[in-house]
Amino acid sequence: MKNIKLTIEYDGKRYLGWQRLGDSEKTIQGKIEGVLSQMTGETIEIIGSGRTDAGTHAKGQVANFKTATTLSPDQILTCLNHQLPQDIIIKQVELVPERFHARYNATGKQYSYYVWNTAIPSAFKRQYSFHYTEQLDDEKMTQACQKLMGEHDFIGFSSLKKSKKSTVRKLESISIHREGELVQFQFVGNGFLYNMVRILMGTILDIGSGKMSLDQIDDIFEKKIRQDAGMTLPAQALFLDEVYYN
Amino acid sequence: MKNIKLTIEYDGKRYLGWQRLGDSEKTIQGKIEGVLSQMTGETIEIIGSGRTDAGTHAKGQVANFKTATTLSPDQILTCLNHQLPQDIIIKQVELVPERFHARYNATGKQYSYYVWNTAIPSAFKRQYSFHYTEQLDDEKMTQACQKLMGEHDFIGFSSLKKSKKSTVRKLESISIHREGELVQFQFVGNGFLYNMVRILMGTILDIGSGKMSLDQIDDIFEKKIRQDAGMTLPAQALFLDEVYYN
Repeated sequence: MKNIKLTIEYDGKRYLGWQRLGDSEKTIQGKIEGVLSQMTGETIEIIGSGRTDAGTHAKGQVANFKTATTLSPDQILTCLNHQLPQDIIIKQVELVPERFHARYNATGKQYSYYVWNTAIPSAFKRQYSFHYTEQLDDEKMTQACQKLMGEHDFIGFSSLKKSKKSTVRKLESISIHREGELVQFQFVGNGFLYNMVRILMGTILDIGSGKMSLDQIDDIFEKKIRQDAGMTLPAQALFLDEVYYN
Repeated sequence: MKNIKLTIEYDGKRYLGWQRLGDSEKTIQGKIEGVLSQMTGETIEIIGSGRTDAGTHAKGQVANFKTATTLSPDQILTCLNHQLPQDIIIKQVELVPERFHARYNATGKQYSYYVWNTAIPSAFKRQYSFHYTEQLDDEKMTQACQKLMGEHDFIGFSSLKKSKKSTVRKLESISIHREGELVQFQFVGNGFLYNMVRILMGTILDIGSGKMSLDQIDDIFEKKIRQDAGMTLPAQALFLDEVYYN
């Protein structure tokens, strides 16, 4: 059996998220498995690096699958892109060692969240950013990011009710890039809990607009109360940029 | 009567173009006139700087209209953006002298055409660029742009059958900006004929990919035969960036 690694870009707008549900037509995983199964004549199951929420996009999602096909990686690439809808693009197909596992071997990820920060909305960015009209204090937001970085129990910044597994994650960096009205928040970490980036973003904007104080971050780390953090910002502004492997 | 100038951004995907047709629901002009007429209680007719084709986008289309309304420019801005669909955004509303005319006073325009130039398509750029897989020689395209610049009769590079009015236009500049896979072609000129940018683009890509020689440009200027130029590239990659006034 061959082990094949896929690097995938998708516009999540039309989908219920990465993970296959009953109705395979509406998830990215379901779409790709459908085409691969037809292509190979096997029942293909792909393993993603992790889920993405309904409406969330990816520029570099990674998945792998096992197959006995004689098709080359190049042929698989061409065939997939020919048969998949135009909002799911396979960027790369690689033959990888049998032990490679897209989820277990992932050592980190980068996400970006885009904020369109001005009074006037944008006809083009509206599907890929969060429109926020209040003025943001970049200095305060940078301080918030400094506080959030490092190893913490992020359960208070997630939508998990409770978890048997550890909810400690390490945020390597959060950086803010402002280009005119568009502000990109880039998160690099060894793992992310359910809705974590979207809740961190709600919190960072609350601090940037003066609705929340910096100290409240310490409080949430300590008391682990989800309600004390900012709101869960919309999914359509969130991009999974890259998955890291050693 | 007040004379009001609008600066407008729109995603042209869902529309039949700028110019109002019978069915006002499907044109940008029709949409804006509908909201303005309702807002003021007058029958408002707006004058655009020029038409844009079905599917073409704008970042800075300009229009003006006369009204007796007591609403301030700020109020008109807020009200328009509240009632227009999300893919039409009014960026600016200004009170201008009575003699201002968005079409007659326009001294020039800037258009951009975007080419996604790599084998793998893009899930995000597909609605706003033309996917072109062949390799492009930037040096040759720059030479083509040099030849096209200046004052010429551009009738051979337009979809006009014939014209009673002059078809001489002056292209101030065509510049090429490559950022990874995305190539932006920026056109600045004192006026543009019907489909002119899209046909110039078809011609420039034919030269960049080696299908057409540079000399053929001189031929088209001389013989004025539309069929000798490149194809009319798709509208969805074309943006009206800005309209210039003195």
